[in-house]
Amino acid sequence: MIDANEWITPYLESIFSGLDENDTVVKAARYSLFAGGKRMRPALMHACAVMLEGCGVASEDIALYACALEMIHTYSLIHDDLPAMDNDDLRRGRLTCHKAFGESFAILAGDMLLNTAHEVLLKLALKGESYAKASLNMSQLAGISGMIGGQSIDLESEGKKISVDVLYSLQKKKTGALIEAAVTTPFFLSDAPSTVYDLLKDYSYHLGLAFQIKDDILDVEADQEKLGKSTGKDERDDKSTFVTLLGLDEAKLKLNEEENACNAVLDTLRKDGFNVELLEELTVFNLKRDY
Amino acid sequence: MIDANEWITPYLESIFSGLDENDTVVKAARYSLFAGGKRMRPALMHACAVMLEGCGVASEDIALYACALEMIHTYSLIHDDLPAMDNDDLRRGRLTCHKAFGESFAILAGDMLLNTAHEVLLKLALKGESYAKASLNMSQLAGISGMIGGQSIDLESEGKKISVDVLYSLQKKKTGALIEAAVTTPFFLSDAPSTVYDLLKDYSYHLGLAFQIKDDILDVEADQEKLGKSTGKDERDDKSTFVTLLGLDEAKLKLNEEENACNAVLDTLRKDGFNVELLEELTVFNLKRDY
Repeated sequence: MIDANEWITPYLESIFSGLDENDTVVKAARYSLFAGGKRMRPALMHACAVMLEGCGVASEDIALYACALEMIHTYSLIHDDLPAMDNDDLRRGRLTCHKAFGESFAILAGDMLLNTAHEVLLKLALKGESYAKASLNMSQLAGISGMIGGQSIDLESEGKKISVDVLYSLQKKKTGALIEAAVTTPFFLSDAPSTVYDLLKDYSYHLGLAFQIKDDILDVEADQEKLGKSTGKDERDDKSTFVTLLGLDEAKLKLNEEENACNAVLDTLRKDGFNVELLEELTVFNLKRDY
Repeated sequence: MIDANEWITPYLESIFSGLDENDTVVKAARYSLFAGGKRMRPALMHACAVMLEGCGVASEDIALYACALEMIHTYSLIHDDLPAMDNDDLRRGRLTCHKAFGESFAILAGDMLLNTAHEVLLKLALKGESYAKASLNMSQLAGISGMIGGQSIDLESEGKKISVDVLYSLQKKKTGALIEAAVTTPFFLSDAPSTVYDLLKDYSYHLGLAFQIKDDILDVEADQEKLGKSTGKDERDDKSTFVTLLGLDEAKLKLNEEENACNAVLDTLRKDGFNVELLEELTVFNLKRDY
């Protein structure tokens, strides 16, 4: 499996080169962006690029898309952690951005990462139509039809008991949209048939849900130090999660179901002649992780 | 002079059509976007498009750029008004977004507007290279090299006495960058020579400063009701503005200087055969306004 952090770090550094390193907004953005996250989305994007190697995708081509996606993911965490939102003090084992730099700089650092991600996407769009389409796909998945839409449903649901169905549709957007972006971006740069797009989207749907169910289970079961953030928070905050709604055992069954659904899609892709080895490894890694 | 609000409203509506109108984030974004602002930036963009009509620019082509710019401008106001930033209760004569919808929805509404603006810019980028370049230009001017960079200097300067030079460079980015975007976007869709770009950029620099000096003067002199926001706030907040640093009389002299510089550029453009009538009208309108 690729070390996705090692892969994208030079590209992220090149994006930040030329910016004033003494600017507090730049510092705050770097602090959160280089906080040692799992780089799950870049790893997924890389695995899909490898799968589509025979269809004209070179993994170097998509490293910048991976950077844009990681910047979007990081901005969403910074804003999510704000006192007015989830009010979290810890993230990835360190102080959250607003705890380290103050709320105003954290808001701006989030804005900056979202904007910079789009500057990268627009530079890529200059390379031609397929690149522009890949960029637009990612932007739409990050926006009100995707992640932001999910965050909105999440805020609306606060303090309410929601149904498992609502939780599914919320998480499909909130967590699922960026995972879909990771998985589908390489498709846009490929000459693969649209059936492959449908399969990748389906895979990302199940993986996104599995990822979130796993997160909810870890909130109860993980070692706080290893997880790098507070545990037991969902119940304290009276949050609707797969665990608080279904109970731990049922949530584990659902996780298993989603994992099987992921593998079923990967089986189909393998039968179609695609190399899905890395995607299989990532599916296992993601669902067996203890942090 | 065009009614810029009337011009872009149908385009803004088309961007919002298809979104869930009951979504609180959508409501909060609409609330701020349709709050009856001056639409100064769209009006400027339109005037520059008219100026470049003979160079292949159609004003319909740039209405969507004007929408994107207005969404970026509006998101920056929503985030600027937040308690952690300027903590303003009134904007355009009504409650600020976070006062009307709560802080968490206001943060998300800002994020949504920034993201949606970029979705529009990326859709335009699909139309070809010159469009992609215009989109990238706007995005960079909105980001850390432009507006966000200016906001960062502004935050760093809080509670400090800064020099007039620092204030100039701060405002060049904070206010000037989006005005530059308004003025230069039509150039990218034109076949005008690069000397025209230089002149337009120069004009936007002086207009941006004049606009900000006028704003600072209005904070002292305007009728609060007409202005739609609290007056006298800069002095209460111990803010460095052209008025608090230079005094009212000197600020008015500076405003005059910048206005003359604007007109000097427009004279050059007129001598080069361009129709700058609308730009002249807007320069006067902007600098004589009492709100």
